[in-house]
Amino acid sequence: METSAHVIRVRVPMRWSDMDAYGHINNVEVIRMLEEARILAFGPPGGTGAPGTEPPVPLFNTVPPNTQSLVSEHRVKYLAPLEYRNVPADVDIWFSSVKGASLAISYLVLDPVTNKPCVKAETMLAFVDGTSGALQRVSAVQRELLGRYTGPSVFA
Amino acid sequence: METSAHVIRVRVPMRWSDMDAYGHINNVEVIRMLEEARILAFGPPGGTGAPGTEPPVPLFNTVPPNTQSLVSEHRVKYLAPLEYRNVPADVDIWFSSVKGASLAISYLVLDPVTNKPCVKAETMLAFVDGTSGALQRVSAVQRELLGRYTGPSVFA
Amino acid sequence: METSAHVIRVRVPMRWSDMDAYGHINNVEVIRMLEEARILAFGPPGGTGAPGTEPPVPLFNTVPPNTQSLVSEHRVKYLAPLEYRNVPADVDIWFSSVKGASLAISYLVLDPVTNKPCVKAETMLAFVDGTSGALQRVSAVQRELLGRYTGPSVFA
Amino acid sequence: METSAHVIRVRVPMRWSDMDAYGHINNVEVIRMLEEARILAFGPPGGTGAPGTEPPVPLFNTVPPNTQSLVSEHRVKYLAPLEYRNVPADVDIWFSSVKGASLAISYLVLDPVTNKPCVKAETMLAFVDGTSGALQRVSAVQRELLGRYTGPSVFA
Repeated sequence: METSAHVIRVRVPMRWSDMDAYGHINNVEVIRMLEEARILAFGPPGGTGAPGTEPPVPLFNTVPPNTQSLVSEHRVKYLAPLEYRNVPADVDIWFSSVKGASLAISYLVLDPVTNKPCVKAETMLAFVDGTSGALQRVSAVQRELLGRYTGPSVFA
Repeated sequence: METSAHVIRVRVPMRWSDMDAYGHINNVEVIRMLEEARILAFGPPGGTGAPGTEPPVPLFNTVPPNTQSLVSEHRVKYLAPLEYRNVPADVDIWFSSVKGASLAISYLVLDPVTNKPCVKAETMLAFVDGTSGALQRVSAVQRELLGRYTGPSVFA
Repeated sequence: METSAHVIRVRVPMRWSDMDAYGHINNVEVIRMLEEARILAFGPPGGTGAPGTEPPVPLFNTVPPNTQSLVSEHRVKYLAPLEYRNVPADVDIWFSSVKGASLAISYLVLDPVTNKPCVKAETMLAFVDGTSGALQRVSAVQRELLGRYTGPSVFA
Repeated sequence: METSAHVIRVRVPMRWSDMDAYGHINNVEVIRMLEEARILAFGPPGGTGAPGTEPPVPLFNTVPPNTQSLVSEHRVKYLAPLEYRNVPADVDIWFSSVKGASLAISYLVLDPVTNKPCVKAETMLAFVDGTSGALQRVSAVQRELLGRYTGPSVFA
């Protein structure tokens, strides 16, 4: 499958315990993997944890101090069961819209061996002041950074 | 707040570790709480675990042997941060559509102290044969059982 | 089974996803349940979350501001697989030693239907200053509070 | 730090949500990371999940059909808080005893940037028949495989 230029492909490890009693990756753990895909692509939320490596697109780890990146909406469609493997899943991730104070992130999760699409999802994110809870506008610098990774919604 | 007759209210315990480094219940753990809300209202998936207590609406624990209840879609809207408390969250849950081979379940998650709505969500579920993966139709008995707990979508 | 006067019995809910692909409560999730047992008995760690209900022994939620309760050691012995049920597990919990700056907590986890002991465990806890990391001594008030809930180690 | 010949070093990814409200990797999630370290070194439990890559020491994925690898005991000592980073933790893992029907596994968890030892742990494992629950003896082939990765207990 050809990957478009706006798409970042990250490799998200599954954990054995992500399987539930049905023997597949649990639907909720898939959404945990989307969180990890965001972090692999855009960095860990600024102000949390300790320094590590620079992500491909340093969006989250370069927000102003005391700014939180909050999920305001998820939409997740499960196309096929995701099987646990001891190799990371492939996740394609890109921005699917950038508005005044929010971002949409699209994802496609693929089985790393069969390359079969298993999950489509979209997340709405907002930057919020950690103290007041006030929405922060997406800055010109962020907009610039995101531009080349922006494409149509996975649900389009 | 008056609760409509089709709504089942369940009390879903939070776990301290459901908080993330931001100090709120993590958005993914909210979706785990929705799984628990389904189980509190409709019983644990048949064929898993050991016997316990009868749920208010015995839907999942009475499916035919080797039938799995699979999530095919989630939509989740976070209205306000859910704060961890050592008292269970209130979750209102009901069916918002019953089609040939799938069910929609609507939820409203409320802070148990302030009664503030924190999360609206809808899940599409299908019954699937555990071996072949074939969709199973919602039976007449299930339809009968669900009827009185069916109302408009939380997103309507 | 008669319960000794120093033992607090709490009822710890299992989550369906605590089961792993083997179909039993995963050994790591058992240790999560021990965390919840501590919170049910002694309150949530002070300074985290929002107010809820008063626990039987208000130990953790009454520490001085900026004091963290940190686990320094776990020992866990699995006697029998713990089966998932939609009724909470019974957990007996008590203090098994109180030293200058640390506490030992003993637990016995029982199947809530068969009453069979499934897990024995002991945790060493210390109170630590959240900024400096310095150990805090167990205060006279805490010592007084713990006295009547202190007994022999579950491993004695 | 020089690593002895019997030690396997694996790199275990942390997840952002492994942090709790104190802002460190939660003590229970450390034990989840030990599970992942075992799988990285010795393979996923046979009969679960789908094929992936061959581990350094194919112990768990080559057990006879219907054999489960069960944890019978954990001992975990937390030496220093483990900080979340977006680079995997280093975990040294080796066998610390091999008896008739059980294995001891020792671990040392190190911060991947400072190289500071954060956690010492030991797990007792047994192979059990999935149907009868009967203990399975460690086979001659397994013994041979484990020999070169066997050293003193991390607690010795």
